Amino acid sequence: MKLVLAIYPGSFDPVTNGHLDLIERGAKLFDRLVVAVLQNLEKDPLFTVPERVEMLREVTRPWANVEVDVFGGLLVEYARHRNAQVLLRGIRAISDYEYELQMALMNRKMEPRIETVFMMPSETYSYLSSRLVREIARLGGPLHGLVPQIVEERIRAKVT
Amino acid sequence: MKLVLAIYPGSFDPVTNGHLDLIERGAKLFDRLVVAVLQNLEKDPLFTVPERVEMLREVTRPWANVEVDVFGGLLVEYARHRNAQVLLRGIRAISDYEYELQMALMNRKMEPRIETVFMMPSETYSYLSSRLVREIARLGGPLHGLVPQIVEERIRAKVT
Amino acid sequence: MKLVLAIYPGSFDPVTNGHLDLIERGAKLFDRLVVAVLQNLEKDPLFTVPERVEMLREVTRPWANVEVDVFGGLLVEYARHRNAQVLLRGIRAISDYEYELQMALMNRKMEPRIETVFMMPSETYSYLSSRLVREIARLGGPLHGLVPQIVEERIRAKVT
Amino acid sequence: MKLVLAIYPGSFDPVTNGHLDLIERGAKLFDRLVVAVLQNLEKDPLFTVPERVEMLREVTRPWANVEVDVFGGLLVEYARHRNAQVLLRGIRAISDYEYELQMALMNRKMEPRIETVFMMPSETYSYLSSRLVREIARLGGPLHGLVPQIVEERIRAKVT
Amino acid sequence: MKLVLAIYPGSFDPVTNGHLDLIERGAKLFDRLVVAVLQNLEKDPLFTVPERVEMLREVTRPWANVEVDVFGGLLVEYARHRNAQVLLRGIRAISDYEYELQMALMNRKMEPRIETVFMMPSETYSYLSSRLVREIARLGGPLHGLVPQIVEERIRAKVT
Amino acid sequence: MKLVLAIYPGSFDPVTNGHLDLIERGAKLFDRLVVAVLQNLEKDPLFTVPERVEMLREVTRPWANVEVDVFGGLLVEYARHRNAQVLLRGIRAISDYEYELQMALMNRKMEPRIETVFMMPSETYSYLSSRLVREIARLGGPLHGLVPQIVEERIRAKVT
Repeated sequence: MKLVLAIYPGSFDPVTNGHLDLIERGAKLFDRLVVAVLQNLEKDPLFTVPERVEMLREVTRPWANVEVDVFGGLLVEYARHRNAQVLLRGIRAISDYEYELQMALMNRKMEPRIETVFMMPSETYSYLSSRLVREIARLGGPLHGLVPQIVEERIRAKVT
Repeated sequence: MKLVLAIYPGSFDPVTNGHLDLIERGAKLFDRLVVAVLQNLEKDPLFTVPERVEMLREVTRPWANVEVDVFGGLLVEYARHRNAQVLLRGIRAISDYEYELQMALMNRKMEPRIETVFMMPSETYSYLSSRLVREIARLGGPLHGLVPQIVEERIRAKVT
Repeated sequence: MKLVLAIYPGSFDPVTNGHLDLIERGAKLFDRLVVAVLQNLEKDPLFTVPERVEMLREVTRPWANVEVDVFGGLLVEYARHRNAQVLLRGIRAISDYEYELQMALMNRKMEPRIETVFMMPSETYSYLSSRLVREIARLGGPLHGLVPQIVEERIRAKVT
Repeated sequence: MKLVLAIYPGSFDPVTNGHLDLIERGAKLFDRLVVAVLQNLEKDPLFTVPERVEMLREVTRPWANVEVDVFGGLLVEYARHRNAQVLLRGIRAISDYEYELQMALMNRKMEPRIETVFMMPSETYSYLSSRLVREIARLGGPLHGLVPQIVEERIRAKVT
Repeated sequence: MKLVLAIYPGSFDPVTNGHLDLIERGAKLFDRLVVAVLQNLEKDPLFTVPERVEMLREVTRPWANVEVDVFGGLLVEYARHRNAQVLLRGIRAISDYEYELQMALMNRKMEPRIETVFMMPSETYSYLSSRLVREIARLGGPLHGLVPQIVEERIRAKVT
Repeated sequence: MKLVLAIYPGSFDPVTNGHLDLIERGAKLFDRLVVAVLQNLEKDPLFTVPERVEMLREVTRPWANVEVDVFGGLLVEYARHRNAQVLLRGIRAISDYEYELQMALMNRKMEPRIETVFMMPSETYSYLSSRLVREIARLGGPLHGLVPQIVEERIRAKVT
């Protein structure tokens, strides 16, 4: 029997219902799933990294084998350090598909023992991205159905 | 008989011959076509929003059912406010096709009563975008055939 | 005020819920919508052309401005003969997008006065095509939610 | 701890080095991997289904948790019957990517409990497909490096 | 100084104005350009291979360094036999781009000394293909501007 | 016999093994190949333009017909000034393919006598770009196999 640890990396600024859909699918498939927030220096974030981690912990509480963590530097080094075998990425018809493959090939070049595995979120979320959510939030548009309830409330508190 | 009001949104910095080709097609199909300039805060615009509006009014004068307007905030809220049934977008083989579909699905999610409709500009303009025009303008390259005569003159006046 | 007649051409072997979704959107936008079944000689059809027409008439009965017709030969000649201004085509992220644009440009070359207009079906139907329905039907798989009720019954009667 | 059974379906006419690369990756990740040969009625096969199965058994012998099987009818019914949780598919930059997503969404619609998971073969095999191998075989071209040694010998025996 | 021989392979059933546009560009760039008609067994050709060759010879007469030839079997073997350094292929935004790259990589795998070089026909011909021309010809549609004059006459003579 | 001068333009910040692969292919095909470094004002370059030129000169020393140069302003004006007939661009399955075609069509519009010619680097480098190299360099990741030896040393000296 194999014990597979998978890492689901991203900015999660903020976590969307599309991310959550993928987390649920990954949690069913892998023994342990680490949602890993990239500590990068974005120009104009909506939430700080600690805020994102807190919201992710809140919304992933239903899955006992899901953990939230933060990483900086190279993803493959973090994955090696965690003894992960898998990098999990979402893939959609409407998406930066080619960029995903490019990153996956580069990561394999740097660490051939770690595999990138792609899963599809529900087609209901094919239009959804954190960037779009941030845009709509800033313009005061409706976020219902796009992000978890708790994120919606935080955004409203922040923007108002 | 239906009275259809369509909105053709964009930055139009500046309006190109490709935009004009699409405006002509839209003006034939819809009862009223509103060319709506997005009042965003781009980093490095070539023309101010009032200048863009003025040039658009000049070049769309031949079509009696075309109107030029400015909007800020969410596009679907502006469309609702104008009682529009249609968002018109150009679609090209060489284009950010997937981004267009993503925006259209998101707009439908926020306002299901408004439809995004795609039309093709002439293939003569398949290479043309405002961004390319700005780049060529800044490098002093030839703009003949890419933008209307009046825009060409304005750019020459501005850049020199 | 403009009176716009649009043609929605296809094989419709059989009509799917994705087609129906697009017909509903087109019926709202255009004054008259003709669903035009192509009388081609496919190798291995599931339904005859008269059967397809009958089912289409049944499922489009709710829309008073929708008509079902049959055509052979060149689409643009049929459109000219019907005095149509618009060819309506569905467009999806998962689709033969480039083929659609190629056909639209060719049709414009042959008849510049007729415009091809693209609309999106609901993302719920992004995976759906008549070809997939025929395949599943032949393998005895479940068709619920993919085609209208009446088509489901006809297929069951036919395949059993 | 989870016991994950994955199915890798295909025609495998013949198995290529690209397939083998993916089988190796899948065998590392999943507890059990079933290579499932589709029993369809192709017009002009190079090998019979029993011949394909025999070659697959030969080349997958190194992996103890890989099994070769044959299936007919709907893939999701076969997967359900085998109690599989995963359908494994290869994904490449040069590939029928959109078709893959379409099939995956349709399979999910028919059986939501089974996930399609995509993995990348080595970029060395990005140009490789069974169809190309059959074409080259029929024209007497060189197959070295494209298929396993044993397949190369069988093709030579067959074509000569 | 280099003497470069390039091969432009295809079915040319029939030669279109898009092919001719590319031949003109290739003839300017390479010392010698061989237009090579593939002798395959298509199911339902419009013209026989000798007819295609004859028409190609007629329409390429203006270029002294262009030659028309026929080949069977593997393209790279023919190229090797002709001592060609280059395979010339047209590339368009609306085209089977990925298939082109797949063939080019496979050809390089079989013969690394021969390079595939891609050039763009005029965007005027972005919608044009031999298959579309055959379809329109069979339906009696207008071919003016799609194929050279002499091909148009031959098709009219053949179809009537 | 033709004397063909080709220009291979880019930022080359820094030159990668993928660039070098393409330079080798171009040097074989064309009489003279000019690697032309664009003197733009990037926000956050890794190397200055003179440093890039120096490294390019070092790594292209093996090819006698390759020259390194710098240009500003419009590429087609530089090409005209150099009496070049060809612009050489790399093309990959994983790449900004559509942007490449758009630029090529625009360049043709401005200067129809200069052709853009596309060649494929080895599929080994399909994941490689200067941007990715800069990212990995900044995170201290391994660059072996991605860039020439001399570039690797310079980066190490710079970053440490």
